[in-house]
Amino acid sequence: MSLVTLLSDFGTRDTYAGVVEGAILRVAPDARVLHLTHGVAPGDIAAGARALADAVPHLPVGIHVAVIDPGVGTDRRALVLQSADGRLFVGPDNGLLVAAAERSGGIAAAHALVVPPDASPTFHGRDVFAPAAGRLALGNAPGTLGDSVDPAALVRLTLPGPAVEFGSLRAPCVHVDRFGNCALAAAASDLEGAGLVPGTAVAVSVRGLQRGAAERGRTFADVPPGALVVLVDSAGAAALCINGGDAASELRLAIGDDVELRLPFD
Amino acid sequence: MSLVTLLSDFGTRDTYAGVVEGAILRVAPDARVLHLTHGVAPGDIAAGARALADAVPHLPVGIHVAVIDPGVGTDRRALVLQSADGRLFVGPDNGLLVAAAERSGGIAAAHALVVPPDASPTFHGRDVFAPAAGRLALGNAPGTLGDSVDPAALVRLTLPGPAVEFGSLRAPCVHVDRFGNCALAAAASDLEGAGLVPGTAVAVSVRGLQRGAAERGRTFADVPPGALVVLVDSAGAAALCINGGDAASELRLAIGDDVELRLPFD
Amino acid sequence: MSLVTLLSDFGTRDTYAGVVEGAILRVAPDARVLHLTHGVAPGDIAAGARALADAVPHLPVGIHVAVIDPGVGTDRRALVLQSADGRLFVGPDNGLLVAAAERSGGIAAAHALVVPPDASPTFHGRDVFAPAAGRLALGNAPGTLGDSVDPAALVRLTLPGPAVEFGSLRAPCVHVDRFGNCALAAAASDLEGAGLVPGTAVAVSVRGLQRGAAERGRTFADVPPGALVVLVDSAGAAALCINGGDAASELRLAIGDDVELRLPFD
Repeated sequence: MSLVTLLSDFGTRDTYAGVVEGAILRVAPDARVLHLTHGVAPGDIAAGARALADAVPHLPVGIHVAVIDPGVGTDRRALVLQSADGRLFVGPDNGLLVAAAERSGGIAAAHALVVPPDASPTFHGRDVFAPAAGRLALGNAPGTLGDSVDPAALVRLTLPGPAVEFGSLRAPCVHVDRFGNCALAAAASDLEGAGLVPGTAVAVSVRGLQRGAAERGRTFADVPPGALVVLVDSAGAAALCINGGDAASELRLAIGDDVELRLPFD
Repeated sequence: MSLVTLLSDFGTRDTYAGVVEGAILRVAPDARVLHLTHGVAPGDIAAGARALADAVPHLPVGIHVAVIDPGVGTDRRALVLQSADGRLFVGPDNGLLVAAAERSGGIAAAHALVVPPDASPTFHGRDVFAPAAGRLALGNAPGTLGDSVDPAALVRLTLPGPAVEFGSLRAPCVHVDRFGNCALAAAASDLEGAGLVPGTAVAVSVRGLQRGAAERGRTFADVPPGALVVLVDSAGAAALCINGGDAASELRLAIGDDVELRLPFD
Repeated sequence: MSLVTLLSDFGTRDTYAGVVEGAILRVAPDARVLHLTHGVAPGDIAAGARALADAVPHLPVGIHVAVIDPGVGTDRRALVLQSADGRLFVGPDNGLLVAAAERSGGIAAAHALVVPPDASPTFHGRDVFAPAAGRLALGNAPGTLGDSVDPAALVRLTLPGPAVEFGSLRAPCVHVDRFGNCALAAAASDLEGAGLVPGTAVAVSVRGLQRGAAERGRTFADVPPGALVVLVDSAGAAALCINGGDAASELRLAIGDDVELRLPFD
């Protein structure tokens, strides 16, 4: 198991992501490193947890390091989680890893990493998580890196969900991607439950204000260029998009905003 | 042939590019993946086609995946093209791949990829192109991935070109790079044809408005800091640049804008 | 020695960084390429020199290519430096490499790369530095790439430093990272010399204007969310940060701005 994937809020302006890769290679020169993204908004643990959980099913089994860590250098725990399907997740105990591990068959074991005394108190990605990932990549068992932790004691996030009734789905926007597509805290089944099946017209409100008409489609080009479409995105979430356009910008829609999708009965 | 290169408009904010790499590795664990760029403007097929065609001559022979795909999930074809020099190009049939394949000795064969029924209709990069690239990386022939297509039936782009006469070159700006250098739809030979040889003074107009004087040079520092220089860029295109500055920003010049470079006869 | 690291101001919008990797692989197909960052501000040699010198101690010994090269295509030298600890540094002779080599045990040898006559005068990253790195990755000695250069003749940067007295540290901001953390041209020992030890209150001025009170801490969360903290960052520099916030934005603080940190005696 020598694939190490990285996800963080480090951005690409600085050397942080490259240095983490280097710190892994200093321990495990033959590890393969895959950069999932370093573009999570600074400190947004929930966004990182969602991105990781949505990505992991499409990745080979590996060592998945995630670092969004506003509590770095405090007494928050550093973790390695084992999932039932054989993946290892490395990162801070702030809820970032749990959803991904649960999507990977559940948490089979958890261990607290020992923080070396000379670790920088502001960069555990480099000085704690990278060396741990390197040792795991060399084949060391998680139990060699620290003491066992009761999975029930891990920090967990409360993630938002939808309110669904026939004719209406309400949910906050939880992600805006590079194209301006707005993912909601709702799944395909929630669209079905609201009666918003492919081909139906959809009335869209944002923060309580009517923002126009969409169509429930399968993909962007199911509607004319510039038109709104509600679809199930590649992560299985209900999403509000514009064919060839930027829905977030056009609708002035941001993460956290309340969105309602309705059947236009009249 | 196990080098796979990726070019897309996915950006770096999301996990899309990393997930595509992961989806390749799930099929071909030993493939090497090189990220050319994911910074093409959203949906800009022509810009992607140009970037790919300009990059490929500098890359080892490999499997070149490109995904700028506004028609994803519709009945547009998914392709693998073979070039005469042994490269494979994987992506949508919207003109993105053709220029690169033609710069690689020409299109020797084309096949239409079978789209798996469970592919997400919004992310063929992950569910169609990545697995196809993986299978090609394992050594499978393109013909094992789908039916042959007549190269003459492929979608082709009409790319803009210059208007050249002695003393004047007119061409649209087709690329603005990170530094603000503005590439024109014109080649070194077009500069020569207009008499704009190294050392000559050049009068610059943008959208019909005179924007000052440049010098025809070889590199940025052939003119003083802050001065305009016309040169042949590293892709062989005529380009308008500022030594140590951002020409696009200073000249308010954007992709698509008409630029005229003239010999200042008086 | 087949690890090649890359640092540049190429950004991620264009294919420049990917093409440099490709140009390395055309020479050395088995070289491993690690992208440190391509996000250095365009042409900012001092920022690149600092980023490289701070990153290298955390990287395996390798071939470290850096390209921030406003003088590309002029008669400025192209270099390979050997450090006493066995690293090789490849890039332009404009001061970019020296600090990193000196942090690696000192410059043991320097050679001037031969520029191929067909090299693009605007992209030595692709046509000079990448092929040189490839040949070094294949095991060729630096002396096979060009003539020896006296290390004393290399271009060196004059880097800013702090003014320290008991009760006051003054230094310019030399880096703003993705999070808005502001690194100063001062080290942990300078904070100590000024009496700014962990736990003390710190009065902050920017460009001579009082901007509020910070605390000298070890990490971000040593102060309440939104509060200013002065700490030693992961590169060993004194830094001004906001817990969970963007200090550069809140304090309107940019690279080059003069910062004073004082003990608030009254």
